Amino acid sequence: MTLNLNCPIPGGESKEQIQLAHGGGGRAMQELLRRHVLPACPGHQTQDAAVISFGAERIAFTTDSYVVDPLFFPGGNIGSLAVNGTVNDLAMVGARPRALSLALLIEEGFPLSRLDEVMSAIHDAAAAAAVEVVTGDTKVVQRGKGDGLFINSSGVGCVETALDISSCHVSAGDAILLNGDIGRHGMAIMAARESLQLDTDLQSDCAPLWTSVAALLDAGVEVHCMRDLTRGGLAAGLNELAQAAGLGMTVEEERIGVCDEVAAICEILGLDPKHVANEGRFIAFVPADQADTALSSLSSHAPDAAIIGTVHEDHPGQVILRNPLGVKRQLSMLSGEQLPRIC
Amino acid sequence: MTLNLNCPIPGGESKEQIQLAHGGGGRAMQELLRRHVLPACPGHQTQDAAVISFGAERIAFTTDSYVVDPLFFPGGNIGSLAVNGTVNDLAMVGARPRALSLALLIEEGFPLSRLDEVMSAIHDAAAAAAVEVVTGDTKVVQRGKGDGLFINSSGVGCVETALDISSCHVSAGDAILLNGDIGRHGMAIMAARESLQLDTDLQSDCAPLWTSVAALLDAGVEVHCMRDLTRGGLAAGLNELAQAAGLGMTVEEERIGVCDEVAAICEILGLDPKHVANEGRFIAFVPADQADTALSSLSSHAPDAAIIGTVHEDHPGQVILRNPLGVKRQLSMLSGEQLPRIC
Repeated sequence: MTLNLNCPIPGGESKEQIQLAHGGGGRAMQELLRRHVLPACPGHQTQDAAVISFGAERIAFTTDSYVVDPLFFPGGNIGSLAVNGTVNDLAMVGARPRALSLALLIEEGFPLSRLDEVMSAIHDAAAAAAVEVVTGDTKVVQRGKGDGLFINSSGVGCVETALDISSCHVSAGDAILLNGDIGRHGMAIMAARESLQLDTDLQSDCAPLWTSVAALLDAGVEVHCMRDLTRGGLAAGLNELAQAAGLGMTVEEERIGVCDEVAAICEILGLDPKHVANEGRFIAFVPADQADTALSSLSSHAPDAAIIGTVHEDHPGQVILRNPLGVKRQLSMLSGEQLPRIC
Repeated sequence: MTLNLNCPIPGGESKEQIQLAHGGGGRAMQELLRRHVLPACPGHQTQDAAVISFGAERIAFTTDSYVVDPLFFPGGNIGSLAVNGTVNDLAMVGARPRALSLALLIEEGFPLSRLDEVMSAIHDAAAAAAVEVVTGDTKVVQRGKGDGLFINSSGVGCVETALDISSCHVSAGDAILLNGDIGRHGMAIMAARESLQLDTDLQSDCAPLWTSVAALLDAGVEVHCMRDLTRGGLAAGLNELAQAAGLGMTVEEERIGVCDEVAAICEILGLDPKHVANEGRFIAFVPADQADTALSSLSSHAPDAAIIGTVHEDHPGQVILRNPLGVKRQLSMLSGEQLPRIC
């Protein structure tokens, strides 16, 4: 296991090759996309899902590939992850998830019994999220040219709200909501890795988020922006939006929930849960005077939801963390890969 | 290089594991899907693209992963293939392609210069097909856990015709149109493989098909069904539709165009071009009395298009090939993988 806590932006000779850091959801990936990928995609949108108008309908469209290692972990497997991860990207732009695609990329020799387990999880997760897998693809690569099973799932959904939920609308004065404690998915994956022998009941938080989002919208909350906290965790989500909006954010450290098991494993591994991936957690930016309404609308779906901070004009592009003593420090996003192949 | 021309359905001990044949587009893949994948996806649709109603709009949605080896070949690379392959799946249900997703799955160590070439091809192919890449994902796996670059592209498009183009509507009496000569993509890939030293100018037929489809629809042709002829080639396309429709088909062998280079390479390798993958060829099923209109509407896009056969009640589920002497034989689809990783 490699814990690459502070991987530099690729430099020198290695600059010419893809490194693990390029897939980590941090600054190295941002640079890769900015320099090598996005210039070729002039129509790209920067949200978790793109929104496209077809006649009177606004359709959300998103994609994610899943390369999680190990494939099976406490609280889920690559199949449930592929359904929930994609459903959640749709939910983050206020879209009711409707249909998924399922592309299996399987290595020769993969046990069919394991495929059956994954497919069963896909079935159950899709039913729980009220989406249908409507189209798919299956490719097989030779032994040694893959790693068991990779899945891509793309999704389409319908934006039923009149709101335009996007990073453009993060505003000074907004309250920042977080729907629960952080770090469970990443630490459940770490505990499941063969190289670690951690005895814990911790489970991934992998779950669909649409019903929580629908509760916010149904309560009439004027949601400005949402982001689910996958690769790069809370720190990456906040920093990306602070940069995109050109605004500063201050977050109260003691309001960020971290359960005992996550805190313990993070301590052992020397990790900060704020950089750890989640698969059922999101932040929402709402007008300050609607924060209490938002919180109560979330209460039945997310009893541990909390208002963790605010957006302001100061420190544009930066996220400030304030501890209970009032001491402030900057919360940066990592450069590269803290934990490879966590999703 | 393995030329597995008549791979049996996996049996015995190997039954419990994924084999290359399961990705070949033949009977082994059909069995895999029927037994292990589709039961978990009760809402799946069997066309190249699913069609979903959103309000008054009919949205087509499709996905494909690309694992072509080598990544670069005469006439294209994995990038142009990923755009055209997905665009064509949309076109096959009569949908104008609108937006694509792009999910890159990159192996650590992949040269950035090669990624730039692929992205450039994606840019150009998307522009040529009048679609935009609107959303994406990038994952990196460790050296030895992938094979350079895999791409998934999913797509959405708008079904603008009132027709319901599907295998359900293949009808006895239909004429079968083919839009050009076959086998160029598969044989261009084979010629590009390091293990073969074939000196040829042959290029892949990789191209977007929407303008051809739009010409058919604009001419008022009542298209019953279309299928692009990728993995498994013409033989798989015809057989799948004969089985789905429960009807027979007779095809005139001399009307199936095969260029000299493809014929020569197929002869060297002992392959039948009717089983070889194409990336710019499709068959269309149209009422017999509209076949000439269909052919003339295609003429500016596909000068070599031809009416290759007819659909009938006899021999349900079978495809009969008739040679110029009138001798008939059955054209079956292969069981497994003729040429692995051709797309």
